[in-house]
Amino acid sequence: MNVRMKMKPRTYWAGAVCFATLAVAFPALADEVKLGDTVIELAYALDTFYFLMSGALVMWMGAGFAMLEAGLVRSKNTVEILTKNVALYSIACIMYLIVGYNIMYGGGPNGVIPGLSFFLGADHTVDEVLTSGGETYYSSMADFFFQVVFVATAMSIVSGAVAERMKLWTFLLFAVVMTGFIYPVQGYWKWGGGFLDSLGFLDFAGSGVVHLCGASAAIAGVLLLGPRKGKYSGGRINAIPGANLPLATLGTFILWLGWFGFNGGSELKVSTIEEANAVSMVFVNTNTAAAGGLVAALLLSRIWFGKADLTMALNGALAGLVAITAEPLAPSPLLATIVGAIGGLIVVTSIVCIDKIKIDDPVGAISVHGVVGIWGLLAVSFTNPEGSFLAQLIGAATIFSWVFGTSFVTWLIIKTIMGIRVSDEEELVGCDISECGLDAYPEFTKD
Amino acid sequence: MNVRMKMKPRTYWAGAVCFATLAVAFPALADEVKLGDTVIELAYALDTFYFLMSGALVMWMGAGFAMLEAGLVRSKNTVEILTKNVALYSIACIMYLIVGYNIMYGGGPNGVIPGLSFFLGADHTVDEVLTSGGETYYSSMADFFFQVVFVATAMSIVSGAVAERMKLWTFLLFAVVMTGFIYPVQGYWKWGGGFLDSLGFLDFAGSGVVHLCGASAAIAGVLLLGPRKGKYSGGRINAIPGANLPLATLGTFILWLGWFGFNGGSELKVSTIEEANAVSMVFVNTNTAAAGGLVAALLLSRIWFGKADLTMALNGALAGLVAITAEPLAPSPLLATIVGAIGGLIVVTSIVCIDKIKIDDPVGAISVHGVVGIWGLLAVSFTNPEGSFLAQLIGAATIFSWVFGTSFVTWLIIKTIMGIRVSDEEELVGCDISECGLDAYPEFTKD
Amino acid sequence: MNVRMKMKPRTYWAGAVCFATLAVAFPALADEVKLGDTVIELAYALDTFYFLMSGALVMWMGAGFAMLEAGLVRSKNTVEILTKNVALYSIACIMYLIVGYNIMYGGGPNGVIPGLSFFLGADHTVDEVLTSGGETYYSSMADFFFQVVFVATAMSIVSGAVAERMKLWTFLLFAVVMTGFIYPVQGYWKWGGGFLDSLGFLDFAGSGVVHLCGASAAIAGVLLLGPRKGKYSGGRINAIPGANLPLATLGTFILWLGWFGFNGGSELKVSTIEEANAVSMVFVNTNTAAAGGLVAALLLSRIWFGKADLTMALNGALAGLVAITAEPLAPSPLLATIVGAIGGLIVVTSIVCIDKIKIDDPVGAISVHGVVGIWGLLAVSFTNPEGSFLAQLIGAATIFSWVFGTSFVTWLIIKTIMGIRVSDEEELVGCDISECGLDAYPEFTKD
Repeated sequence: MNVRMKMKPRTYWAGAVCFATLAVAFPALADEVKLGDTVIELAYALDTFYFLMSGALVMWMGAGFAMLEAGLVRSKNTVEILTKNVALYSIACIMYLIVGYNIMYGGGPNGVIPGLSFFLGADHTVDEVLTSGGETYYSSMADFFFQVVFVATAMSIVSGAVAERMKLWTFLLFAVVMTGFIYPVQGYWKWGGGFLDSLGFLDFAGSGVVHLCGASAAIAGVLLLGPRKGKYSGGRINAIPGANLPLATLGTFILWLGWFGFNGGSELKVSTIEEANAVSMVFVNTNTAAAGGLVAALLLSRIWFGKADLTMALNGALAGLVAITAEPLAPSPLLATIVGAIGGLIVVTSIVCIDKIKIDDPVGAISVHGVVGIWGLLAVSFTNPEGSFLAQLIGAATIFSWVFGTSFVTWLIIKTIMGIRVSDEEELVGCDISECGLDAYPEFTKD
Repeated sequence: MNVRMKMKPRTYWAGAVCFATLAVAFPALADEVKLGDTVIELAYALDTFYFLMSGALVMWMGAGFAMLEAGLVRSKNTVEILTKNVALYSIACIMYLIVGYNIMYGGGPNGVIPGLSFFLGADHTVDEVLTSGGETYYSSMADFFFQVVFVATAMSIVSGAVAERMKLWTFLLFAVVMTGFIYPVQGYWKWGGGFLDSLGFLDFAGSGVVHLCGASAAIAGVLLLGPRKGKYSGGRINAIPGANLPLATLGTFILWLGWFGFNGGSELKVSTIEEANAVSMVFVNTNTAAAGGLVAALLLSRIWFGKADLTMALNGALAGLVAITAEPLAPSPLLATIVGAIGGLIVVTSIVCIDKIKIDDPVGAISVHGVVGIWGLLAVSFTNPEGSFLAQLIGAATIFSWVFGTSFVTWLIIKTIMGIRVSDEEELVGCDISECGLDAYPEFTKD
Repeated sequence: MNVRMKMKPRTYWAGAVCFATLAVAFPALADEVKLGDTVIELAYALDTFYFLMSGALVMWMGAGFAMLEAGLVRSKNTVEILTKNVALYSIACIMYLIVGYNIMYGGGPNGVIPGLSFFLGADHTVDEVLTSGGETYYSSMADFFFQVVFVATAMSIVSGAVAERMKLWTFLLFAVVMTGFIYPVQGYWKWGGGFLDSLGFLDFAGSGVVHLCGASAAIAGVLLLGPRKGKYSGGRINAIPGANLPLATLGTFILWLGWFGFNGGSELKVSTIEEANAVSMVFVNTNTAAAGGLVAALLLSRIWFGKADLTMALNGALAGLVAITAEPLAPSPLLATIVGAIGGLIVVTSIVCIDKIKIDDPVGAISVHGVVGIWGLLAVSFTNPEGSFLAQLIGAATIFSWVFGTSFVTWLIIKTIMGIRVSDEEELVGCDISECGLDAYPEFTKD
């Protein structure tokens, strides 16, 4: 299902259109036409409002990532990660407004080359909507709002993985390129109607377009950066515990809540019985997949490590959410729970393995959004009869190659200009003082 | 008013039905029927969307309980209480999906024996809704989503009361039984149309079915556990201050926000003038009852203790919310403020008294949700002309007896299998390290 | 545009009204009238629901201010600022219910003297709405809910500026006067249809009526109080860092989210294509103005101070939000970004300047809400063709004079009765122990 393709025929407006036709012949029917128009207006308003509420929930995920990451880094790098998070959100909003949205939704069908115009266009006029007979069924500004917060989500994934060592302004410069160009291009390939969409690649709300995308950029950054000092010193894997686990838990709850907008809004419409049922199913499946992921990760960590590891449980919930995002509508709630639970098992395993090969990802973002994002894409071929394993594989490979490649090059260029990693001394003291001149918790931390 | 009874006759659809009848006789009327159907679809979509938004707000209450409890325990037990909170939410979602929902809504009218089927059924078809003439007016999946987050709320109440000493896995095993069986059975008795409902017992959004239910289980747990080490040592009542009061305040704000979904969504419908007015009244009363509870508790603590005790104020707000939950529609806003304020006075008194008889409830959950829950149920007989004091009393007694009894037995059984309380040494060191292997604030706490 | 004037002619209901007229003559048309009525009901329900959701988002801003302020004060004054925040919200709700709403919306057109009745009236009846042909288009209870949370917002602004030194009960007594009287009177002058409205003063969602209003009261308080001990000792400006910057960041994210309700809800209607488009534009502009403000403030702080100052960035986002609040509909998104960015530049400059003249505002509330509030009001004359620079200036001057004057007098009176500032010793130890008897973080802070 091309859920993001914005024009859907809406047969049930036939009545209204029919009225319009009759009204020309029989003036007495004019009143009925007006009522039909009012109904079209109401449906437009409801779908638009649903979009705006969904977008607001996704915007809230920005806070979720900020809290999650601030809770999982050390206190000396907390202000810096917070600054990165608020700034990346803002940069995403501005860049997507100026170029990204047009790149993503301005290209032709089946293509590879995206749109090239600038700035957001005007909204639909009343006439345009009414003469469309309801085919144009929500505000394009509301659509922009919903889309723009997705870009921010993709970018938020990156900040966690490169935390505690990437220079602030290097990161923000990368955010400009990522949100204005890298993300929108692959977004066009799927949701803008480009070649991945024509190929039959399915990605309901973005296990690939958003989560794998963010994780692919994160991998490029992590490989270029190398691990944090002390992480793998002495030939061992040293745990570097996060400074504030209630904050990390709060972040996870925020993300969980925001995901109802993320997946629920991606149905793009709520104003009919079928669509309302679909959105409801998406809410139920999103919720239960997260629950399944959390329980599975908690049990596995208990069995494997002997402890009920909270951070693994939180990552399990997020893994469940990422896993179901590619197809939260087709499976039954029980199947959705299983898809999420497998995501939870994968994420624990992946975090351990990635750590073993000495790739240092402080918050587990590569595992949660990348590895499980791929699982989510592949799972579609089991949960949705229309899914093709091959198409899903091609989609995942395309997204990874594009984002990893362009990100790698972008960071290499930035590296030659201004460097990518803070100095050893700055890393030791913490990025907060060197980059931001502030302490996150000036009265708490032990000397 | 049987607010949870899901089938209400909706007379205003008569027009649409009438159209349908006419349309058989006069084909020219077919267009009007189509328009009538579209209107039914829109109303269904609006009510479903209202349900989903309300459910999302209630889901958010899970974060509220987690933050409140994490703020009110000591730092050495913070990771464990967070783990309990995220895990209980997940368990509630899964258990209610598999068995709970059918137990609660699958039984016959006026009965004691609940439903016995498994797994969630399918959603309403378009035909089913349209031929019902609008009597079936929202997605059953949305209903499930709204109901499932209520179960999690009930279970969240328990975790606070047994904090800092109950074993993690004992608690989670209990959560399986509570959310899959104990809660749904008494839920059926009222909201599923069972004997308490037939009796005229009124409970709009769950002062009894949710809050007293949770508190009754909490009492059973607390009695079996005994107080925390040091709480009543030396013949005195020793205050054990919470580690993070901003977190507790945040939790209260989250709960306050979520309660708009909890009470507002329990009207079950918004798509007519009367229902929209009712939902609005519920929002106003919910808000003002919380405000009344907070101010009353703050003033009483100032007069009684000489200090403006923040934790008492927060519990006052929650008490106001619990108190109005049984009937947030009938009273005027001023009366709602008074109902909430009395709740605030009761909760301060109750917390002091319960502490005096050496029942150790670290967060005051028994007072907030149990004692004030009973006040809320009884207040209905003053605020709603249809309320009967006797029926309310029977309802409260039934819920308490059932939940306390079954919880007590459940925990006794678990106790014999795997124990219920952490060892003295674990309690001294804190449950975080022994149960979860993590420190909540590794860099902050003084040695 | 007088967005807050609640009665707007809605021409598109002409169809329904026309039906009603015809129905008297031709009984066969009665069914069509019923359908028309159902559509009116649906629109009423959608607009009411939109109001309630917007109000809930604005209520959530109370949590935002609480977290922001708790993060920016020192740990020894954290419990007290939290207590002030939860209590002021509650007081605002009760006072506005009893007197404020009637003062604000009970006066005649073009007047200076506000309404004088007490208590909230009843909601619209079904008949009233239907015979209005849709002119009465949302629940008056929902309107009250939306308005009441605005009062709380205005009051929240004050608490930050007078933090760490004003007596708790002095502040709460002032809150009674401010929310019950001072705010509603100037609110009437604009949104109640009073003389500022007649004058052509434009203030879409309250850069003046809410933000400048709050800041004007704050200035009065700050001038009466004087700076915190040690802030300007030794002839220097000593930075007093906030204790918990993740909390301050969370607060900013909460405010950002809540602002979608604040501005988005102030369109007052969503149920037509034009209104849905307008609300969408308001969402987009609100978001992008905040983004612009954040980026501008971050860059300026980097250039000016050499560091990416997180607190300046957060204040930049809030400044962007305050700046766009007076007119979030008329400008294009790009222009909105610029309005916000200028707000961000102003706020950094203002915070530095205000500090230089030794006015001590711990959280920067006067700059964010006052100085930038004025910028927001004046910007309307550039962004909205209907805006008049003179009218905006008169509006700003009127609001400031009224609120500053009455606040100053109120606090002077309270000062003679019970004092306004805590003792030097209490200030040294912190207000938490002396006022509330509790420590915010008993286990964290260094001795």
